[in-house]
Amino acid sequence: MIYEKQYDEYLALVDDYIEKLWDDAEELPKTDAPPLTLAKAMRYSLLAGGKRMRPVLLMAAADFMSVPLMAALPYAAAVEMIHTYSLIHDDLPAMDDDDLRRGKPSNHIVFGDGMAILAGDGLQSAAFETMLSAAANGEIKPENAIRAMKEISLRAGIGGMIGGQVIDLESEDRQPEAGRLFYLQQKKTADLITAPILAGLLLGGASGAILSDFEKYGAGLGHAFQVIDDCLDVIGNQQELGKPIGSDAEHGKLTAVSLYGLSGAKKAAEEFTQDAVNALAPYGEKADFFTELANYSLSRMR
Amino acid sequence: MIYEKQYDEYLALVDDYIEKLWDDAEELPKTDAPPLTLAKAMRYSLLAGGKRMRPVLLMAAADFMSVPLMAALPYAAAVEMIHTYSLIHDDLPAMDDDDLRRGKPSNHIVFGDGMAILAGDGLQSAAFETMLSAAANGEIKPENAIRAMKEISLRAGIGGMIGGQVIDLESEDRQPEAGRLFYLQQKKTADLITAPILAGLLLGGASGAILSDFEKYGAGLGHAFQVIDDCLDVIGNQQELGKPIGSDAEHGKLTAVSLYGLSGAKKAAEEFTQDAVNALAPYGEKADFFTELANYSLSRMR
Repeated sequence: MIYEKQYDEYLALVDDYIEKLWDDAEELPKTDAPPLTLAKAMRYSLLAGGKRMRPVLLMAAADFMSVPLMAALPYAAAVEMIHTYSLIHDDLPAMDDDDLRRGKPSNHIVFGDGMAILAGDGLQSAAFETMLSAAANGEIKPENAIRAMKEISLRAGIGGMIGGQVIDLESEDRQPEAGRLFYLQQKKTADLITAPILAGLLLGGASGAILSDFEKYGAGLGHAFQVIDDCLDVIGNQQELGKPIGSDAEHGKLTAVSLYGLSGAKKAAEEFTQDAVNALAPYGEKADFFTELANYSLSRMR
Repeated sequence: MIYEKQYDEYLALVDDYIEKLWDDAEELPKTDAPPLTLAKAMRYSLLAGGKRMRPVLLMAAADFMSVPLMAALPYAAAVEMIHTYSLIHDDLPAMDDDDLRRGKPSNHIVFGDGMAILAGDGLQSAAFETMLSAAANGEIKPENAIRAMKEISLRAGIGGMIGGQVIDLESEDRQPEAGRLFYLQQKKTADLITAPILAGLLLGGASGAILSDFEKYGAGLGHAFQVIDDCLDVIGNQQELGKPIGSDAEHGKLTAVSLYGLSGAKKAAEEFTQDAVNALAPYGEKADFFTELANYSLSRMR
């Protein structure tokens, strides 16, 4: 299948790039390399696997605009670093207190709470270090690089993903409410799925209608993704998911399932996916990768 | 005195800019504003006072290159956000476990550990959000903005300040050693003092000799600053410092005092300051602000 081959091609580039990061770490670094323990802690979580959907979306969006894939790669890796740092901090005892992530002990279980905090801080910083170092080499037009990085920073930031984490923290054991759930999903999940799509397009100088259509696609895909995750937390398989089932309910989390019930949530995921697919109708076959990705994501639930 | 008047002018601009940040926060934000609690936690530490030496240095360096002060301001504020996030995370129970900062309860004492982690994450993100939003408006030449942001990201990052925090964490209760102390000071402190100086210059397109002279100045000032801090932790006044005296020794920290003793450390601070002043000799009166700042910083110890 073309979709799967394409996904694997983007994924291989991302994996290869990430695998080589910080292999110059020294115990007491005299250069601008990171200290060895920090590099180990960052790499532990960054290389723990996962589908790498976010960086793959950035590569696909850059490809859509005919940006050379190698030039887009540092930005794709940066988005995965941001996603990973948020997971490390989210698992800390002071936050969700999860001991298991992707089937392996969480970062703080292996490296301790202090080092896990610094590994998270380091991955967020490294995301911007990586993008800005790439931007400084001039392969991407500087104005386009700035617009792409700005998009990522805002959607990963205090009005985006971090803001979503705060709403999540504050929503535990509160009465479920539709407005709150929508903004929680938008910020906590959809923003960091939309960001790499728009950033990939912006690297290629996209503007106007393209950005607005793909923003709708990203919102549909992102909301569907979170709703599917909420469903899998109830009906999923611990081994496949790499984390315990039922942890949302245990934490009193606000989720699509807690608000709409399982069948209502499944229906919502289908509708969000349809919204995503519809948004890219104007692009016909050229957008096939994106529409197939949305349908494939939905199929995780079946 | 011209120096003090100049410092206060830069400081007033920075304070005014920072005071207005995130005043559009909403409890459940529907815009890209941050949630109210997050804004409160970030503002609590950002507005807790301090000399704001780092952003002032950026303003002075930008001024040195005739960059309009208003165009430099977002970058200056960003450096203060990075400094503040590192203090919030450093005070956490999993790190230095300090209850008091600048004479007030630490962030996690007021807002809880989870929110303090998110407030720190938010401030690091907001630093890049702020700089990239400014860079996108085009007042600074895009290439120069990228070089300035890159400098800040690398020196605040895993091979700079964050790396220094890791060395600090790993140096507790270990045998004092000169090489380790030097890299600890360079990364933990001097890098985030050098970064705003070089970034301010880069905003104005500086290159070559100017960057290299000011890098030497920044290293001298930064090392002196940390050594002076180490001395004040022994001979200082709790009320003036806003934190308990003797906490370094209590934590078994590697400091200039633990390695060289108090009089050896004082001598080192004087030598580092002299290195800083000497580095700017080629610029004569034009660099007076910087040399006076170095001498004033040393006078804290007397």
